[in-house]
Amino acid sequence: MDADDVLAAKRAEFVLDGAPPLAPPEAHAVAPPRTPRPVYLDGNSLGALPRTVPGRLHEVVTREWGRLRIRSWSESGWWTAPERVGDRIAPLVGAGPGRVVVGDSTSVNVFKAVVAAVRIAQQDAPGRDELLVDAATFPTDGYIAASAARLTGCTLRPVPAPELREAIGPRTAVVLVNHVDYRTGRLHDLPGTTATAHQRGARVVWDLCHSAGALPVELDAHEVDFAVGCTYKYLNGGPGAPAFLYVREELRSRFDSPLPGWNSHAEPFAMAADYVPADGAARGRVGTPDILSLLALEEALTVWDGVELAEVRAKSLALSDFFLRCVAAYVPAGRVESLTPGAHGERGSQVTLRCAGAGEVMEALIAREVVGDFRQPDALRFGLTPLYTSFADVAHAARVLGEVVA
Amino acid sequence: MDADDVLAAKRAEFVLDGAPPLAPPEAHAVAPPRTPRPVYLDGNSLGALPRTVPGRLHEVVTREWGRLRIRSWSESGWWTAPERVGDRIAPLVGAGPGRVVVGDSTSVNVFKAVVAAVRIAQQDAPGRDELLVDAATFPTDGYIAASAARLTGCTLRPVPAPELREAIGPRTAVVLVNHVDYRTGRLHDLPGTTATAHQRGARVVWDLCHSAGALPVELDAHEVDFAVGCTYKYLNGGPGAPAFLYVREELRSRFDSPLPGWNSHAEPFAMAADYVPADGAARGRVGTPDILSLLALEEALTVWDGVELAEVRAKSLALSDFFLRCVAAYVPAGRVESLTPGAHGERGSQVTLRCAGAGEVMEALIAREVVGDFRQPDALRFGLTPLYTSFADVAHAARVLGEVVA
Repeated sequence: MDADDVLAAKRAEFVLDGAPPLAPPEAHAVAPPRTPRPVYLDGNSLGALPRTVPGRLHEVVTREWGRLRIRSWSESGWWTAPERVGDRIAPLVGAGPGRVVVGDSTSVNVFKAVVAAVRIAQQDAPGRDELLVDAATFPTDGYIAASAARLTGCTLRPVPAPELREAIGPRTAVVLVNHVDYRTGRLHDLPGTTATAHQRGARVVWDLCHSAGALPVELDAHEVDFAVGCTYKYLNGGPGAPAFLYVREELRSRFDSPLPGWNSHAEPFAMAADYVPADGAARGRVGTPDILSLLALEEALTVWDGVELAEVRAKSLALSDFFLRCVAAYVPAGRVESLTPGAHGERGSQVTLRCAGAGEVMEALIAREVVGDFRQPDALRFGLTPLYTSFADVAHAARVLGEVVA
Repeated sequence: MDADDVLAAKRAEFVLDGAPPLAPPEAHAVAPPRTPRPVYLDGNSLGALPRTVPGRLHEVVTREWGRLRIRSWSESGWWTAPERVGDRIAPLVGAGPGRVVVGDSTSVNVFKAVVAAVRIAQQDAPGRDELLVDAATFPTDGYIAASAARLTGCTLRPVPAPELREAIGPRTAVVLVNHVDYRTGRLHDLPGTTATAHQRGARVVWDLCHSAGALPVELDAHEVDFAVGCTYKYLNGGPGAPAFLYVREELRSRFDSPLPGWNSHAEPFAMAADYVPADGAARGRVGTPDILSLLALEEALTVWDGVELAEVRAKSLALSDFFLRCVAAYVPAGRVESLTPGAHGERGSQVTLRCAGAGEVMEALIAREVVGDFRQPDALRFGLTPLYTSFADVAHAARVLGEVVA
């Protein structure tokens, strides 16, 4: 399978060698087996380092900041980086140019998007005052949505994702959904939920943290209103790299941000007392962009050159199918249960296994250089990142899991 | 004066050599004089690069991200960096430990602080619905304050800074003031304005962008409620480095953030559906911290080891006095006028000169390797950064300014 992998060459573009392994915890003080390298299956949490990033970042720091200093805002293209990097992400989420801007955290972008979406929904139909959120959302989305609801006079209603479409009613202003559930890896129905919301007069905000770079996302084609996502998972931008915000073309002039910082002004250097928002993607900016992280991300995105998302998706599904087969073969029956849907159409790019003592099991896996992560109370998460995960990696991971559990 | 400078040795800790100069614009196509180096007087916009930052950042990228990857959130101290770096900034602004947190942009922190301050003021006295802001504020503060007012049902009233104290009335919830005016370099009265606001039942938010690292700021001593500031000017954290937020100890448990992201949760990894805010400085966090920029900043702050802010202030005032004397000596009479107050008690750490054709004059200065900046419509700004600006620098700058203007 690795020999037939059309993305196999991409693996060499990442740093995948490891640091010395952790000292094994007392309970598992057995010498770990020799493996060719750590098997890193946590790219759904923090993507691996693309090889060209350290060199580029060194240049940014020593030449652009160190020697050019303030001149770099224009000469090194710092000022326009949020839109430029946004345009690099755009094709990965099915967006045309000028619709994606990079900056701030996902949480802050959820706030911008939800408040702005409520404002648009209420302009169109003043009585709408309900905000729906999928009940199993990544927590920050729910917390931020609650704050947005409080500040805009709305009520927040959590609804299990499969029931969301039916729950959209005449009072619904906005629906906020995670495209892929961070815990189970379940892929939610973006086209259907968006269409139903629009039929019923509501707006949608999609959180793409666990889908951007993992599978095709067709934001323009499905007329999504707003979307946000992080860049440090499948996009490999580095720890805490700035997030992105997508605004639908038709809503661009109606996007009324609750965080209208000076970077989103039509003429930021006029330093005017009155706020006039910029026309394009820059309207989603707030304060001065975080240049070191932003330019590291820009360099990291070059690994996507020439990559087709259909190939990424095909490999992702093949990897998760194969991993589940290996788990069935190597792990004693009844010891783990997949929380990730079997149907391809409902699967993101991770596999989550329920397992008794999952916290200790993950510690033992990491001590044996198989790196996934543990989520409360009983979940083992394994991220499958098609640009650098091999079929041999997942077979090895399943084999070690079987040994640990046994 | 340079020989007597107790901070002179600090200069060697920064990279101050320059890139090849810009091609001189047509209008000034005279060969620039040979100077030992560019004279960088724009540290009030972007601080110079501390020498140890590139090495540290390379280690963060190649070892902590590249090899340890996800383990670095605990093993490399990534998760606690916002509070740890906050505690490094705290003594520079007169704050005790646990009161400063680093993350997000200044604009986003202004939003947190203003909304939270309004909530506290209204809890204490429900009728308060007015937000005062200094009329010459850096634009982003005014824009964000207007958004905060709109979302909390308040009215924004801009008032010229010298009249602010008198303007605080029974309806005033919050006063938002820039400690130093970004344009003129005027230092506003923090102790007096804060005391008056408290006497009249209002809360204060101070923006320290142009004072943190430039002069002593005694936040705890003057019982300031909230403060924000950037870290890329006098704190030399790098372009767009994350900003900081200070919350007064007595208000810690009442700080009700409008951006309650998962990083501010009491137990972030419990991934709980209900939001319970953290107790300490972490309550001001929002999303995943921007690690590359944050750790570059942390390294940059090591240049402050052993530095007394009283020495910084004394040198800053001596530099601006000397620069103004050199300007008087070298620039033909009547060609420039200082917008920066003469009284030391009203002066920050920059000198702003009004000058006809200021835009072209600054271009000519930069072509001759004297780097300040231009602000609309007619202002030349020269930042004096006591850790690396010498008296010879400012004398040279004044001499070149005289030649250019003549």
